[in-house]
Amino acid sequence: MSVTLPKGFTAAGTTAGLKPSGKPDVAVVHNTGPSVAAGAVFTTNRVFAAPVKWSRQAVADGQLQAIVLNSGGANACTGAAGYKDSAATAARVADRLGLIIDNVAVCSTGLIGVRLPMDKLLPGVDAACAGLSPDGGADAAAAIMTTDTVPKQAGTTVGEWSIGGMAKGAGMLAPGLATMLVVLTTDADLTAQELDAALREATRLTFDRADSDGCMSTNDTVTLMASGASGVRPEAGAFTAALVDVCQDLARQLIADAEGAHHEIAIEVTGAASERDAETVGREIARSNLFKCAIFGGDPNWGRVLSAIGVTDAAFDADDLDVSFNGVMVCRGGQIGEDRALVDLSGRHVRVTVDLHAGRASATILTNDLTYDYVKENAEYST
Amino acid sequence: MSVTLPKGFTAAGTTAGLKPSGKPDVAVVHNTGPSVAAGAVFTTNRVFAAPVKWSRQAVADGQLQAIVLNSGGANACTGAAGYKDSAATAARVADRLGLIIDNVAVCSTGLIGVRLPMDKLLPGVDAACAGLSPDGGADAAAAIMTTDTVPKQAGTTVGEWSIGGMAKGAGMLAPGLATMLVVLTTDADLTAQELDAALREATRLTFDRADSDGCMSTNDTVTLMASGASGVRPEAGAFTAALVDVCQDLARQLIADAEGAHHEIAIEVTGAASERDAETVGREIARSNLFKCAIFGGDPNWGRVLSAIGVTDAAFDADDLDVSFNGVMVCRGGQIGEDRALVDLSGRHVRVTVDLHAGRASATILTNDLTYDYVKENAEYST
Repeated sequence: MSVTLPKGFTAAGTTAGLKPSGKPDVAVVHNTGPSVAAGAVFTTNRVFAAPVKWSRQAVADGQLQAIVLNSGGANACTGAAGYKDSAATAARVADRLGLIIDNVAVCSTGLIGVRLPMDKLLPGVDAACAGLSPDGGADAAAAIMTTDTVPKQAGTTVGEWSIGGMAKGAGMLAPGLATMLVVLTTDADLTAQELDAALREATRLTFDRADSDGCMSTNDTVTLMASGASGVRPEAGAFTAALVDVCQDLARQLIADAEGAHHEIAIEVTGAASERDAETVGREIARSNLFKCAIFGGDPNWGRVLSAIGVTDAAFDADDLDVSFNGVMVCRGGQIGEDRALVDLSGRHVRVTVDLHAGRASATILTNDLTYDYVKENAEYST
Repeated sequence: MSVTLPKGFTAAGTTAGLKPSGKPDVAVVHNTGPSVAAGAVFTTNRVFAAPVKWSRQAVADGQLQAIVLNSGGANACTGAAGYKDSAATAARVADRLGLIIDNVAVCSTGLIGVRLPMDKLLPGVDAACAGLSPDGGADAAAAIMTTDTVPKQAGTTVGEWSIGGMAKGAGMLAPGLATMLVVLTTDADLTAQELDAALREATRLTFDRADSDGCMSTNDTVTLMASGASGVRPEAGAFTAALVDVCQDLARQLIADAEGAHHEIAIEVTGAASERDAETVGREIARSNLFKCAIFGGDPNWGRVLSAIGVTDAAFDADDLDVSFNGVMVCRGGQIGEDRALVDLSGRHVRVTVDLHAGRASATILTNDLTYDYVKENAEYST
């Protein structure tokens, strides 16, 4: 269940010394082919990091053979010099593995506004390239962690082909928190166009609906490389469905490990006039600090849910809104429903269900509560 | 410096027993004329409370003679029964003071989704009406406090006429946090149309730019009553300028007393292509939990400022952005500027200056840091 689950991939993680903690900080994932088809989606933040600029260009032709990732520095807001650092990192991987430089993507995460120590990074890249192995997925996943407390990996096998993946971060793609980096691999044989379509759909339904704190990173990147090593061309729908499963697994792991979270919250919006409306309402609730603090305090505060719904442009009538916490409908028809004392929020998982009674569409947004520990981590940690 | 500063106003605050704490909870402000001209602005939340529905109708004809306010219950999401409670409260004031019921506005603040105990509220209204006095401004300001630690009052005198005001809450109008209620009074002689224009301009420049936590209340209300008792008709520009001053004073007091805040932050955006761009950028920064935690932690984290700017649609080039914390330009031209160690964030007041280098417009947004105490207050207090 890692990026090396599919055939045709090797990976490695190593310690270059970028982090004061001395933990692993450089990873490489290598697609050994025969196919080099790839797709990627990036942060939509207009202030984006040098590696994002580099990787956008690298994947523009639908081809990638390797991805090099580092924690311990985001290489964002570092200007032309920072961009040269990303290019030099890609060049080093290309040189060591005998690849075209434009087929190497670069991902970075860590503090913004600080140059990477290239004298440490490049030897680390050399070591990672030398250590590439079909069993290296777990090492790679460990090397991209920042404030993550556990590595995140997922994978699935459908008949003859597989999808593998790893992720770091505690947030989402657009918008996203504390940089999210995701590397997905498959040995299915698909064109770059097919990969791009599947990746955009999977991202829309999973990472885009995991909203930990509403902040969008300068470095968010999700890549998908296909080696074609299984020799199988799956049907597009089947591949997309499997990719959604893997991405949803990773998204849940990200939310479960979000900074300082005590509760994992699923906000399910039903009865919406459109999927967009459902998503808009769920996201607005997920971004309400008052709502998030209430969950931390074990308070099924449906008034704060209604306040959040009320600022959206979704179709609804305020007198039709139903809100349930863990199955107890504390607000029915926009008014007081069942006794809030019946709600038990002591468990880690909380499900908030909103019925807009305006249509048949639905969407679920994943988020966290707002806790002392979130404040502590983000007051003390510089990103 | 209270709502009874201008001639032609009496006020009172009393204890009806709506709050478990036993503190004052009902206020009445009475315009004794000769004019009854008034204006008001309300929350734009589509889920709005019964008193907002009542008061919108009451002020629709540009006339108000009294405002009755209660803390200890928001009367929001209480349906038709809650609306009848607001109407009954207005009727009681009209009866006691011999006014037309449609000239009485009602404001409520406190827990959402709970009916008001009318058996306690109405006797409290009677007591307040009986206690109305030209010296009652301070008592009225104390009676509308919820999580406020101090009452908020302001006032100014220009020649023969004055403006007075009181406020409660820790937020803003649109969007707003923990209900903001503001009552403004003047003895200038102005038409309802003139009052409405001045109030909308003042609100736009002050309360709308104080964004404590980005959450919009169901009950936010700002009213302005003119008694005309000075007999003076000020020039519109002079009146608006004075009103802006009073509102800005109250807005600063609201931010200074925001829930759990350790720092008061002024985000000044300059060099914008339009005032709207400047406001958009300032607001996005003010809503970044990561930025707000960094200030709490004493960290001049300009990367989080740039991340927030990057999600707006304002005109700028990422390579032109300058960001200063308390006068130290830690980011110049989108890159590392002066040493961040030079920034001292130990004081209560923090000024973040952003130059977009895209034009000549500017705006300042006031906000707070995100602290343990904010989480504590909002995890433990039900609104």
